[in-house]
Amino acid sequence: MPVNLEAPARDALLPVAGVAIGTAQAGIRKANRRDVLVLRLPEGAAAAGVFTTNRFCAAPVRVCREHLAAGAGSVRALVVNTGCANAGTGTQGIANARRSCEEVARLLGCTPEQVLPFSTGVILEHLPMERLLPGIGAAVDGLGASDWLDAAEAIMTTDTLPKGASRALDVGGRRVVVTGIAKGSGMIRPNMATMLGYIATDAALPQALLARWVREVADLSFNRVTVDGDTSTNDSFVLLASGASGVAIADDAAPGAAPLKAAIVAIAQQLAQALARDGEGATKFITIEVERAASGAEAAAVAYAIAHSPLVKTAFFASDPNLGRILAAIGYAGIADLDVDRIDLYLDDVHVATRGGRHPDYREEDGQRVMKQSEIRIRVVLDRGAATTTVWTCDLSHDYVSINADYRS
Amino acid sequence: MPVNLEAPARDALLPVAGVAIGTAQAGIRKANRRDVLVLRLPEGAAAAGVFTTNRFCAAPVRVCREHLAAGAGSVRALVVNTGCANAGTGTQGIANARRSCEEVARLLGCTPEQVLPFSTGVILEHLPMERLLPGIGAAVDGLGASDWLDAAEAIMTTDTLPKGASRALDVGGRRVVVTGIAKGSGMIRPNMATMLGYIATDAALPQALLARWVREVADLSFNRVTVDGDTSTNDSFVLLASGASGVAIADDAAPGAAPLKAAIVAIAQQLAQALARDGEGATKFITIEVERAASGAEAAAVAYAIAHSPLVKTAFFASDPNLGRILAAIGYAGIADLDVDRIDLYLDDVHVATRGGRHPDYREEDGQRVMKQSEIRIRVVLDRGAATTTVWTCDLSHDYVSINADYRS
Repeated sequence: MPVNLEAPARDALLPVAGVAIGTAQAGIRKANRRDVLVLRLPEGAAAAGVFTTNRFCAAPVRVCREHLAAGAGSVRALVVNTGCANAGTGTQGIANARRSCEEVARLLGCTPEQVLPFSTGVILEHLPMERLLPGIGAAVDGLGASDWLDAAEAIMTTDTLPKGASRALDVGGRRVVVTGIAKGSGMIRPNMATMLGYIATDAALPQALLARWVREVADLSFNRVTVDGDTSTNDSFVLLASGASGVAIADDAAPGAAPLKAAIVAIAQQLAQALARDGEGATKFITIEVERAASGAEAAAVAYAIAHSPLVKTAFFASDPNLGRILAAIGYAGIADLDVDRIDLYLDDVHVATRGGRHPDYREEDGQRVMKQSEIRIRVVLDRGAATTTVWTCDLSHDYVSINADYRS
Repeated sequence: MPVNLEAPARDALLPVAGVAIGTAQAGIRKANRRDVLVLRLPEGAAAAGVFTTNRFCAAPVRVCREHLAAGAGSVRALVVNTGCANAGTGTQGIANARRSCEEVARLLGCTPEQVLPFSTGVILEHLPMERLLPGIGAAVDGLGASDWLDAAEAIMTTDTLPKGASRALDVGGRRVVVTGIAKGSGMIRPNMATMLGYIATDAALPQALLARWVREVADLSFNRVTVDGDTSTNDSFVLLASGASGVAIADDAAPGAAPLKAAIVAIAQQLAQALARDGEGATKFITIEVERAASGAEAAAVAYAIAHSPLVKTAFFASDPNLGRILAAIGYAGIADLDVDRIDLYLDDVHVATRGGRHPDYREEDGQRVMKQSEIRIRVVLDRGAATTTVWTCDLSHDYVSINADYRS
């Protein structure tokens, strides 16, 4: 059960001028579900991406990076499959990823280097090319109206809902659209289901600007969400600019640059939070704010220690204000000179601990009241400096174990 | 259900000359269970300990360290309570830990600095001194025959079985006994239930030697076990030497030093493995061996990444050979220059992956066969150097979630 999350309405995901979408049921792993997406871009479109930090990155991630470097962001299509991650598949995996790009290029009349491949699903298995290639053909045949809800559905694995968001804005009297979709449950620390995210705009942006924005946007959104601390082999987030609106954004100072970037960040944050809201087995959506840290890295270390603690996560699942577990997680976050006697802890508006110990006014029933909510904010004040961070996560439930124990069955 | 683990027989835990044991039911948290242990040592006994690295260490850990430093290891008693960790309790927590030591010292006729306090249980709550002090009195009244099974039972929290081990050896025609007990599920990365371990011998050892041995022994045993990656505020491991056998071990070169140390290591390893075998909700006991790493730290990083991955642990619970999850965990272990194309992976005798990809002879049914076993060995060969490590852990089951969701109820 996702936490306060619904599938977007079909007409809420605005078409992005210049972007065509096609999906197919190729039967990669399971029958009767969309499992192939082809996204076509017009000539002159730009793309930039950020990818998993996992050293065991999947074949499509390697090929994606190659193609982005070779084509300097001149991308004409994306091809995505679910059901098989094409990871841990050696040279044959690389060949299969290239073959998928060649097939798209042949059908669309571009070069294979202008196609970016993505896969998500089980590791250590080869792509069933005899089913994937016809699936790519069917998706290309279906290219047309820019139906992003179809696209969002086609990339789902353990997601219970498709995830998408959209905004239109006015730039000097002209309309610019930003639409994004995502699947999975994390990015730097994602669920094996793999995080894939795509955000497209019909503004025109130079590739260098897009390449900087994609990193900055990821750092404010997908890099701030975690479900279980596992970093997938396939995580990818790509920013696309079709240019078809005729609105050109040359640099950060251009008219419209700031509101466009803000819209992209807002969509990326909404998608990132949706990943945690739909985290495997999630029953609670948890926002962790760490304040007054000595550095951003230190703030993140504390936030992730809390977010990844199985004991903290099971306590939230149980609505049990066993809040000492949060203090324990702060204590093992790896800050060697941490003075625990300076730490304050809040649960929403409830002041739980002050100067490292239980707050004299803290009452169990106040903690209990907040723990029962479906949305909970943990706030940690370290009193060491001025850095702050926010991380979104979910609880650890019986269903998490069930989903991941039965993932392949 | 612990994995291939039984409670030790009462007569299998050999009395250690000079050590007296008393336990009591103080009702610290629950009625009708032993929750206080007092362990008395003769004059001239030596003690040394290693403690949690958690910055939020509990009050008794702070006091323990102080007393060991003040008394240079001249320890006359240990006092242990379960039900309340006395952590996150500020100055009152420190005062309560000191008060417990004062009570023992008063009853036994020693100084408070010669008493070491230990607590385990819920964090952020104060010790119920009105019940603990009478409990200490009752435990002291019962001091007598060195019944280590009573002691092992008195320190249990979520443990399903008492854990103890014992050996006798011959040193120059004289008998030396080593007996140890432990509770909880880890040490450097333990379960909130907290790891406590005590090993006593009736040999005489100088405190400096004991202080070195306790670190070396921990590194070969309790520091190599993990259940869920949470590091408790209270973890403690103490080595005691009563000297009552009359056998003196002056240094590492002394006759009997090597076999005595080997016996202590063997007991510590047996206890450490027992912690993982009785890990919360454990259904599988998993040994992770990382070979040919560039350094010990690198080997440990890879082993712990595997041991802490919820996705790996749930796959083991499900007996599902979804072994790509192990490769993914290796990939995010933080080795920046890891060449995944040099990695081999074995599951017991089954060669799963070679040079970073699925082994051509690997068959799903072979992986399945091993995954169904209750004891499984994962072997990772990094091909980067000569360092090796071993870590013991367990799977992640529905019962883990149940136990930790309901811990305080």
